[in-house]
Amino acid sequence: MLAKAQVLYDFTAEPGNNELSVKEGETITITNQVNWYPTIIAGTAHCLSWSFSSDACLFLQSNGNDPWAVFDTNASGGFSNNWAAQPEGTETGRTGSSVWGSSAQGHPQAYQGPGKPLRLCALQSQRIECTQDQGEVGPVWEYPETQLDCVVADPKKGSKMYGLKSYIEYQVTPNTTNKPVNHRYKHFDWLYERLLDKFGSAIPIPCLPDKQVTGRFEEEFIKMRMERLQAWMSRMCRHPVISSSEVFQLFLTYKDEKDWKMGKRKAEKDETVGVMIFSTIEPEGVPDLDLLEVEQKCEQFSRFTKAMDDGVKDLLTVGQEHWKRCTGPLPKEYQRIGKAFQNLSSVFNSSGYEGEATLTDALTAAGKTYEEIAQMVAEQPRKDLHSLMETNNEYKGLLGCFPETIGVHKAAIEKVKEADKLVATSKITPAEKVTMAKRLSTMSYSLQAEMNHFHNHRIYDYNRVMQLYLEQQVKFYETIAEKLRHAHSQFTTM
Amino acid sequence: MLAKAQVLYDFTAEPGNNELSVKEGETITITNQVNWYPTIIAGTAHCLSWSFSSDACLFLQSNGNDPWAVFDTNASGGFSNNWAAQPEGTETGRTGSSVWGSSAQGHPQAYQGPGKPLRLCALQSQRIECTQDQGEVGPVWEYPETQLDCVVADPKKGSKMYGLKSYIEYQVTPNTTNKPVNHRYKHFDWLYERLLDKFGSAIPIPCLPDKQVTGRFEEEFIKMRMERLQAWMSRMCRHPVISSSEVFQLFLTYKDEKDWKMGKRKAEKDETVGVMIFSTIEPEGVPDLDLLEVEQKCEQFSRFTKAMDDGVKDLLTVGQEHWKRCTGPLPKEYQRIGKAFQNLSSVFNSSGYEGEATLTDALTAAGKTYEEIAQMVAEQPRKDLHSLMETNNEYKGLLGCFPETIGVHKAAIEKVKEADKLVATSKITPAEKVTMAKRLSTMSYSLQAEMNHFHNHRIYDYNRVMQLYLEQQVKFYETIAEKLRHAHSQFTTM
Repeated sequence: MLAKAQVLYDFTAEPGNNELSVKEGETITITNQVNWYPTIIAGTAHCLSWSFSSDACLFLQSNGNDPWAVFDTNASGGFSNNWAAQPEGTETGRTGSSVWGSSAQGHPQAYQGPGKPLRLCALQSQRIECTQDQGEVGPVWEYPETQLDCVVADPKKGSKMYGLKSYIEYQVTPNTTNKPVNHRYKHFDWLYERLLDKFGSAIPIPCLPDKQVTGRFEEEFIKMRMERLQAWMSRMCRHPVISSSEVFQLFLTYKDEKDWKMGKRKAEKDETVGVMIFSTIEPEGVPDLDLLEVEQKCEQFSRFTKAMDDGVKDLLTVGQEHWKRCTGPLPKEYQRIGKAFQNLSSVFNSSGYEGEATLTDALTAAGKTYEEIAQMVAEQPRKDLHSLMETNNEYKGLLGCFPETIGVHKAAIEKVKEADKLVATSKITPAEKVTMAKRLSTMSYSLQAEMNHFHNHRIYDYNRVMQLYLEQQVKFYETIAEKLRHAHSQFTTM
Repeated sequence: MLAKAQVLYDFTAEPGNNELSVKEGETITITNQVNWYPTIIAGTAHCLSWSFSSDACLFLQSNGNDPWAVFDTNASGGFSNNWAAQPEGTETGRTGSSVWGSSAQGHPQAYQGPGKPLRLCALQSQRIECTQDQGEVGPVWEYPETQLDCVVADPKKGSKMYGLKSYIEYQVTPNTTNKPVNHRYKHFDWLYERLLDKFGSAIPIPCLPDKQVTGRFEEEFIKMRMERLQAWMSRMCRHPVISSSEVFQLFLTYKDEKDWKMGKRKAEKDETVGVMIFSTIEPEGVPDLDLLEVEQKCEQFSRFTKAMDDGVKDLLTVGQEHWKRCTGPLPKEYQRIGKAFQNLSSVFNSSGYEGEATLTDALTAAGKTYEEIAQMVAEQPRKDLHSLMETNNEYKGLLGCFPETIGVHKAAIEKVKEADKLVATSKITPAEKVTMAKRLSTMSYSLQAEMNHFHNHRIYDYNRVMQLYLEQQVKFYETIAEKLRHAHSQFTTM
């Protein structure tokens, strides 16, 4: 069965590259799968090795019976819209490879397209190094030896069009080059869109901190946005698939404006988007997972992410209320207690009675102590609750991506379940049915690796944020106790 | 000018006592002041000595131009009503002493009446022992060497009329006899009424804890009432004038039922009530205070007690709100935080991911810690705020008595101010005018002594209660810090 596809972008073949020029709107028939890259990553002795494949069709619109397209769902939303919504154009006589043609061995360079093939990390079936005392967790992404990280700092106001347009530029310095690059919020947003397009079906890409129209230049807002961009970047850096992707590397290490602009253009033309990300993964040396196991894993992840989403939202609600109380009525109350003590002190001072200076001084000091406590209470949420809320907000964002990811997965499961019927009605060939099951197994390995990545980082993040929170809480209560101990010492009854 | 007075009670003269029998309703003319007791208390070298005088008129109704009556005001309320409202009876030919007859030296025993003369304490002009670092405070009551105190304890349900009537009886044990006597609430109430009648014009007698109709036999109520009766009794014990009074001693040390009943009857017939209390005080060896000084002192006391009343009420309001928050929304919030952590822990537990037992155990422990904190928060007001509130409630009650006391004083000042006019219109004699000024001076000395008593105890009480409050607050915050430190230690990031 030959897949037909509509050309979405113009492509001009370079001489000697065995490429074919195509024009936007043309329809082509794909006759053969194209694999540009053989296996490029081999893990340790225990590693599974994967080949990275990219099909010419990745920048072609499917208009035939594309077996990847069946895994696409409405739930997968924005990043796969251009997968189905383009109008059909004219056919070309060109031949290509079927997306599902798993046996095709030809490696034509013709449709390599604008993007380099994705360097997806290998899945390992071994212990995760950064947690202790655990058993087998199943497939995991292969993590680089040195973890990428970056610092987002030094926000500066910039302008262009002779000052008509102002913006804030942040300095982003990766630990690899240690060379800062500048980025505006809209560049982060651009990166987000690229990552979402490219990895969104397999990897939850959390939203950036909100766009904001007013108050963009206020110091407090800039500080908060920077902090959130830092958290977002750190999370992306920590993900081995994302951090090693070309577009992410471009963002962190572009050499100059020209380099950035060329890289941008190239990334925007990358057609390995939506569910196609799974087509770039081909497990080797691991048995295919059976449907039941895939379904069970998927159900488990779905239940867990839903439950955690509820738990995180609950904590956020409670935290928000506590924040409100800590910054609103509670310090007001401590302040009023403080004022009441001080007021009583000044009344006592007016008694005309000799020898109550000790009491009035002590009462004033106690009153001031409660005013200090009021201030401490009001400031405390920024010191402890803040990081707890930020982390949970991040996780809320992450967890919000899972329904889509899991939705893609579930749709694929349903399609594989229907495969027998499709074979019976000649919609697909028996060989295609086998390939579909293989693809689903691949998707499941990928989802498991992603879940393991999620769990691993979740454990670290929650341990860390709880430590931070409790550390600050301890300091808070200790400081109050110390202040009150001092206030206490000033009263005297003989 | 001879004062006429109506006999309020029958009195049968005892033979050999130089007494005169009178019948209720008779009107007698008082020609001479009677002094039963000479100076009985002499202080240290610096002491002023006072004579305790009691006039026959004290149990006679004034129907003439009684100079004490002019100091009586509506503001002085209940305890002086019988001072003016009795109908006039028939005159007797008997002679007595004018209430204002300051020069009378006769000591007739005739109208000693049912009560023994009041043992009002001397006013001293020396340092008060229980405060330090002070200068002259002016007149003070003379304090006994051993301070009277008592313990109110062991509430027991009693009944009479074959079980038809139930009541709670408290055991009251004074530190003087160490012999317990039993009293019901209504006995305390009876004592309160006697003290109010007798001393209310000069000494603020705080109300008893509220009467209550329902729930009188509930354990919590009995405990609270006992605590408040204890506080009230302790305050009365601490007052040298009250604690040495016959009625108060009767209450604490009656020998048997018969003794109690006889003492009761006698006390109820005591006529040294209302403003007459001042007539039992006669300063000796101290200069009369001039009107300006009296007025200034009175104004100062008035301002101070009003200001303190406001301050105390403010603190009570703030305290009540804080109590509500500490027992209502705040612990609920800590509980919800605790639940949210525990909930997250059980979600994490369901991840199926190996090796997160450390995190889930730590999260559960942290959650339980916040539930413990919730309980601590809810129970804390009983441990600290309670005593602060009780003390301030006591002072609110005490301060509520001052407007009446000060009202009596202010009315007396006004009368003395009018004295010139009264002399000009022959309403009083010039000698009576001098006596009125003398009496006012006496009242002022008395008020000053009472204010000094008040200040002295106020300083002690507030020092003590603030120490208690802060001590418990320190413990509270220290315990929370300790609990959180332990919770913190269970998280781990390597």
